[in-house]
Amino acid sequence: MTTVKVAPASLDPWPALERVRSAAPLVQNITNYVVMNSTANALLAVGASPAMVHAVDEVEEFVAISRALVVNIGTLSPRWVEAMRLAAARAAAAGIPWVLDPVGAGATSYRTQTAAELVGMRPAVIRGNASEIMVVAGAVGVSGKGVDSAHSTRDALAPARALAARTGALVAMTGVVDYVTDGTRAVSIANGHPMMARVTGLGCTATALVGAFLGANHDDRFTAAVSALAVLGIAGEIAAEQSPGPGSLQVHLLDALYRMDRATVTQRAHIAEAA
Amino acid sequence: MTTVKVAPASLDPWPALERVRSAAPLVQNITNYVVMNSTANALLAVGASPAMVHAVDEVEEFVAISRALVVNIGTLSPRWVEAMRLAAARAAAAGIPWVLDPVGAGATSYRTQTAAELVGMRPAVIRGNASEIMVVAGAVGVSGKGVDSAHSTRDALAPARALAARTGALVAMTGVVDYVTDGTRAVSIANGHPMMARVTGLGCTATALVGAFLGANHDDRFTAAVSALAVLGIAGEIAAEQSPGPGSLQVHLLDALYRMDRATVTQRAHIAEAA
Amino acid sequence: MTTVKVAPASLDPWPALERVRSAAPLVQNITNYVVMNSTANALLAVGASPAMVHAVDEVEEFVAISRALVVNIGTLSPRWVEAMRLAAARAAAAGIPWVLDPVGAGATSYRTQTAAELVGMRPAVIRGNASEIMVVAGAVGVSGKGVDSAHSTRDALAPARALAARTGALVAMTGVVDYVTDGTRAVSIANGHPMMARVTGLGCTATALVGAFLGANHDDRFTAAVSALAVLGIAGEIAAEQSPGPGSLQVHLLDALYRMDRATVTQRAHIAEAA
Repeated sequence: MTTVKVAPASLDPWPALERVRSAAPLVQNITNYVVMNSTANALLAVGASPAMVHAVDEVEEFVAISRALVVNIGTLSPRWVEAMRLAAARAAAAGIPWVLDPVGAGATSYRTQTAAELVGMRPAVIRGNASEIMVVAGAVGVSGKGVDSAHSTRDALAPARALAARTGALVAMTGVVDYVTDGTRAVSIANGHPMMARVTGLGCTATALVGAFLGANHDDRFTAAVSALAVLGIAGEIAAEQSPGPGSLQVHLLDALYRMDRATVTQRAHIAEAA
Repeated sequence: MTTVKVAPASLDPWPALERVRSAAPLVQNITNYVVMNSTANALLAVGASPAMVHAVDEVEEFVAISRALVVNIGTLSPRWVEAMRLAAARAAAAGIPWVLDPVGAGATSYRTQTAAELVGMRPAVIRGNASEIMVVAGAVGVSGKGVDSAHSTRDALAPARALAARTGALVAMTGVVDYVTDGTRAVSIANGHPMMARVTGLGCTATALVGAFLGANHDDRFTAAVSALAVLGIAGEIAAEQSPGPGSLQVHLLDALYRMDRATVTQRAHIAEAA
Repeated sequence: MTTVKVAPASLDPWPALERVRSAAPLVQNITNYVVMNSTANALLAVGASPAMVHAVDEVEEFVAISRALVVNIGTLSPRWVEAMRLAAARAAAAGIPWVLDPVGAGATSYRTQTAAELVGMRPAVIRGNASEIMVVAGAVGVSGKGVDSAHSTRDALAPARALAARTGALVAMTGVVDYVTDGTRAVSIANGHPMMARVTGLGCTATALVGAFLGANHDDRFTAAVSALAVLGIAGEIAAEQSPGPGSLQVHLLDALYRMDRATVTQRAHIAEAA
């Protein structure tokens, strides 16, 4: 893989970010308890309008007024999985893009099976770490590291491509280097900082931001997904430079998302076509 | 509306805040997953003693030892609504003031109906944004913006007054300008900062602080509600002045609540009788 | 009690912390909604790998891959208590150490009974404040302060010893002075700062860190528990010195956990044998 600093012009994250800020898309989240607060704050910082709505009694009605849906299985239970099914089906039927985050797929049978079922419900994007993507792609069976990845994204690129080709979803895989693939094309994003792994839920934040970018960029999902990961990675870099530790990083990350300007995006984005 | 800087002496927030700090009222919260952590921290910062207790098996017993109850429907589901009913009924019967936050009323039928039911259970205060208050007051049917407001508080003042008159609750409505009304009298609080809208759950924090102020000021609910909104708005102003973005604002807001002194309250409070 | 600055060499927290960082133990948490985010971040900052997994459908399978289990009843409900039972039984059977946090025991019958049942399921450590430990030990009946303590840890030391002797668990009790006892021996840890009480969930964080230290130090549970409390207390002191209020303290605490070095631990630890 050759990472060049200047992105292909068609993948410039800036116009996609501007659209998020001007449209302020309503993004519905059925997500886990751990990250509800932090992902809502990231969505607000980037300019979207988050709502955390997961009751079986109302998810379908809420999907209908949303511009994107995020489904994250981080703290799943049967009643929540039912709500995820209802919301995903409604979104797919209505042409509202939805993003799946198969948190911890491979750690327990329940997660692996739930992830497999949801993968079949036409998500626009599947966002996970390397181990989760490999499990969902069927390339490995179980993962012994809980919700953290035991593999590199480079190793998981072939399974990611196969998963995209099989499902029709984009696969957005995050790690030291992030990748987005539609099965044929693959693009790498080499932004971010190692200290980000010490803040809980930044993978879930990536998923939420993909939702926001999809919600404001219905016409080009590939660029939306790439842009979301690049903007988060850049914000993480800026935050890490200011932070003695992960507590500060989390605070500065939100500030950086809020203040992100065109020059910063242009200078820092490391986006490249991947072999 | 004429906003004068010097509040009517009877509405000075300082004595009400001092009572919160000296009494450290136990405030029970049945609230949403997104804000449990942040509202608990705001309650601690202002000097109250928060507890998040929502199991059907224990809410009534816990209400009996609390000085105030907060009921927030942000992430409602049937079992939680059952707990809200039990707790609200017990609080109303025991004369323990309780605050209702009808989060997202108007966004789905389930929320609108649940809010309507709880409004009828004698809350001491109903705290919402303009759209939520208008929906609960029956002035508009649905709101298409999810949990964010599509209306200004000024537009919603007449419906807020009608709601207060019909229910006997105070209505505390927050936005660019906040209002508290008992149906006849209305007071405006012109504090706060636009960046506060980029931090999730500050509306819910307003509700929680109203609970704390009610819990320590049973004898004057109107002043308690006004004081809570003024103190939060002032803390938000101070925090925004120190913050490059919403991540920092959330941190500094808690510090400002903790450090709030009489001079700051006196100099910054913008409280006025509203026409 | 004589507090001497130099700890008994066998209780030096540094080697135990180093083992957490090198082993990065997977710690499963069945904990409350309020603190899921903050305790996950504390576990990451100290070097552990947290997972919040509580569904009845998967807890037992997940325990089997974990190095320690944390069970915290802060926001309990029947389905969650069922998951706690399953996970605790599996952990005890497999020799995986588990920590019980009986949050709010004494505040409601439901909490008191649930805590009593779990105490009987062979936890390695019971971590609570003075009132919770006294209730669980049977020394007092009810506590009228919600989830905050109405007693000092010094007053609760005898009940704590009796509880440890009866159950075979270590009792780790936190307050102005912390204690760890196995029923016979008792050690005091005089670190920490009063402002820590204004941040929600730092007691729960103590419990989570005890889990992490147990997970990486299976061979010496007593030193593990003492070390966890000392490291948290020291981090709290450092954070308080940098913080105008509790918002900043929470941020700096995570930074301090992440940056903790041998010299800081050696200079600041106040650990002593207690009479």
